[in-house]
Amino acid sequence: MDWETLARELAVPGDAKIVLVVLDGLGGLPVGGRTELEAARKPNLDALAARGACGLTTPVWPGITPGSGPAHLSLFGYDPLRYQLGRGILEALGSGVEVGPQDLVARGNFATLKAGLIGDRRAGRLATETNARLCRAINAALPVREGVETRLYPGKEHRFVARFRGEGLSDRLSDADPQKEGKPRLPAAPLAPEAERSAAVVNGYMDAVTALLKDEPVANTILIRGFSGLPSLPSMPELYKIRPAAVANYPMYKGLARLLGMTVVDAGSETSSLFEALEKHYKDFDFFYVHYKKTDAAGEDGNFDAKVAAIEEVDAFLPRLTALGPEVLVVTADHSTPSVLKGHSWHPNPFCLVSRFALPDDVARFSERDFGRGLLGSFPALQAMPLMLAAGLKLKKFGA
Amino acid sequence: MDWETLARELAVPGDAKIVLVVLDGLGGLPVGGRTELEAARKPNLDALAARGACGLTTPVWPGITPGSGPAHLSLFGYDPLRYQLGRGILEALGSGVEVGPQDLVARGNFATLKAGLIGDRRAGRLATETNARLCRAINAALPVREGVETRLYPGKEHRFVARFRGEGLSDRLSDADPQKEGKPRLPAAPLAPEAERSAAVVNGYMDAVTALLKDEPVANTILIRGFSGLPSLPSMPELYKIRPAAVANYPMYKGLARLLGMTVVDAGSETSSLFEALEKHYKDFDFFYVHYKKTDAAGEDGNFDAKVAAIEEVDAFLPRLTALGPEVLVVTADHSTPSVLKGHSWHPNPFCLVSRFALPDDVARFSERDFGRGLLGSFPALQAMPLMLAAGLKLKKFGA
Repeated sequence: MDWETLARELAVPGDAKIVLVVLDGLGGLPVGGRTELEAARKPNLDALAARGACGLTTPVWPGITPGSGPAHLSLFGYDPLRYQLGRGILEALGSGVEVGPQDLVARGNFATLKAGLIGDRRAGRLATETNARLCRAINAALPVREGVETRLYPGKEHRFVARFRGEGLSDRLSDADPQKEGKPRLPAAPLAPEAERSAAVVNGYMDAVTALLKDEPVANTILIRGFSGLPSLPSMPELYKIRPAAVANYPMYKGLARLLGMTVVDAGSETSSLFEALEKHYKDFDFFYVHYKKTDAAGEDGNFDAKVAAIEEVDAFLPRLTALGPEVLVVTADHSTPSVLKGHSWHPNPFCLVSRFALPDDVARFSERDFGRGLLGSFPALQAMPLMLAAGLKLKKFGA
Repeated sequence: MDWETLARELAVPGDAKIVLVVLDGLGGLPVGGRTELEAARKPNLDALAARGACGLTTPVWPGITPGSGPAHLSLFGYDPLRYQLGRGILEALGSGVEVGPQDLVARGNFATLKAGLIGDRRAGRLATETNARLCRAINAALPVREGVETRLYPGKEHRFVARFRGEGLSDRLSDADPQKEGKPRLPAAPLAPEAERSAAVVNGYMDAVTALLKDEPVANTILIRGFSGLPSLPSMPELYKIRPAAVANYPMYKGLARLLGMTVVDAGSETSSLFEALEKHYKDFDFFYVHYKKTDAAGEDGNFDAKVAAIEEVDAFLPRLTALGPEVLVVTADHSTPSVLKGHSWHPNPFCLVSRFALPDDVARFSERDFGRGLLGSFPALQAMPLMLAAGLKLKKFGA
């Protein structure tokens, strides 16, 4: 029996409010002896650490660097090794593209083809309006292929979501993207026999789009990657008997939240707007996933100081959150993004649980090393959801 | 491979004595900053902590609050998710009711039926002697139903154990108890097709009992819940090559111990009598499970001070235990029962292992928070038995 089975059996509705704040990519590594968290002035995070039970979570497996999908799934109580999501489905849902059970979706770029080689994978980051115009033209000219409805949904600059809708499509396809410049176009390859027709449809479509765009000066081909169908996941309301809301302002996190049955509330692009949205919708839900992206973005840029600043920025807003008085408050991360690594890493995440029913430890600073001495110890992120639900008294007793 | 398989392969008989003291529901939560353990004066427990290796155990799963059955099973090395016991079987065995492979047992109450609704689920907590008289009358009038032997075993006040003995009975039955007052009687429903006949027998019997009791002023119907057959568990002597004894004075714990192949030695109702029984039988066995209930009972009552007093009471007896000089001494709990929660909880249990072959740490106070810094760390309670057997040199090397 696993957590999912236990949750179905034991979860009960309850009034307590649970707020889960994910500071994306929070954990780091030292520069000059201090990590980003250790270098930041963050009195409110430190105060939470002093009040709460602290520990470190491992997103997927020790030493394994997770993508955003598995890192978040784990935090929401879904085994990331069991539920593997394509990037395409997250992007599609986050862009507001409707995805059904017959659909195959993927992320795409407009790109520049020059003398048979990909010269610029982003077509000079073409104007978003040009992107929209090209997608309209392509959708008008190429609406269906071999009985499969084909459609591009423009995003920002060079990005789009491609959707293929028809019977018998499979997402067992390799990327139709050489990933590097100076290489020729690359067709999607079937990774299983049942994906052969899908590969033919996708590759034929991409050839037709390239032919259609031949006179465009910059955006004269497309690259597509991260093919995925609609995954079948149990929803959080179904599993946990909660009414969950997502307060996020990046497409992928909104998309993931929708996939798990959360209601995505409108949050603008400012940090303040996350907290305003939380306040505005606080009475309507009993579980809130609040996603803050800047910590990860600064880490990805390799910008230690910007990551410190991002930590300090969000810290200043925390009193607005604690003023709401949630019965359970967790501040943690999905994965680490040390600026020295300029990307996600495998390091465990600081995890702080504040609740009347969580035993506080003597940790008083919010950092990777302090949390290593916390009472919650080191534990799989998959155990975060049970701990949060328990502290909200939303789990019945197991057995007699 | 799991622990059970390893145990079968590696356990060897040995002379060392292992004493496992379970202070039921020991762990708590702070009131005024201190948990029950932190508030108690308990020099002997603290001395054990100073001599031993300390840690925290998780009974079933983080965040999961266990019943007494799964919490104890885990401590005895039985995966509680694999072996799920009904309350009925524990109650029956603890009440000294003989249970065989053809039996279906359950817990029951005498109750008051008024104008077709359950007015009092406990029939005014009728006198134990009245209970015994009614059970005798019912057993005499209704000995058999559709070839199934039916029998009630009186307990204290309104409680009894019901036993149905016959071929082809199944325990896949819902409770024949509405659980709330002001509701009508509720028949048992079959949860699987093979339980249809059992449901018919049980419901017919309950109707007949209710008809028989129609002139009783208070106890004029019965409620039955927690149906269970005899579970099939490997015994501790078989798995671990030990001669185990249980020193306990509450029915459920004695019942569980019998189910696992322990010999239940007679222990009176006083705390002192637990230690007397241990001393008396110390030469006859090599594994002793000593169960102390008062800590849990006080926690269930929400009585912080009574729980502190219960800790102090048992602390005073520990020198008698250490004087016996067991090669392995463990003091721990099955689950936590914080008085602020007035019930079982999900919080981990303090676990202290004293043995010549356990590496002592620098923990010198017996408490939840101190044990969080112990050398054993946080670990599943299912790993307690391997650690105890190992310290008793009762496990062979694995592999060459």
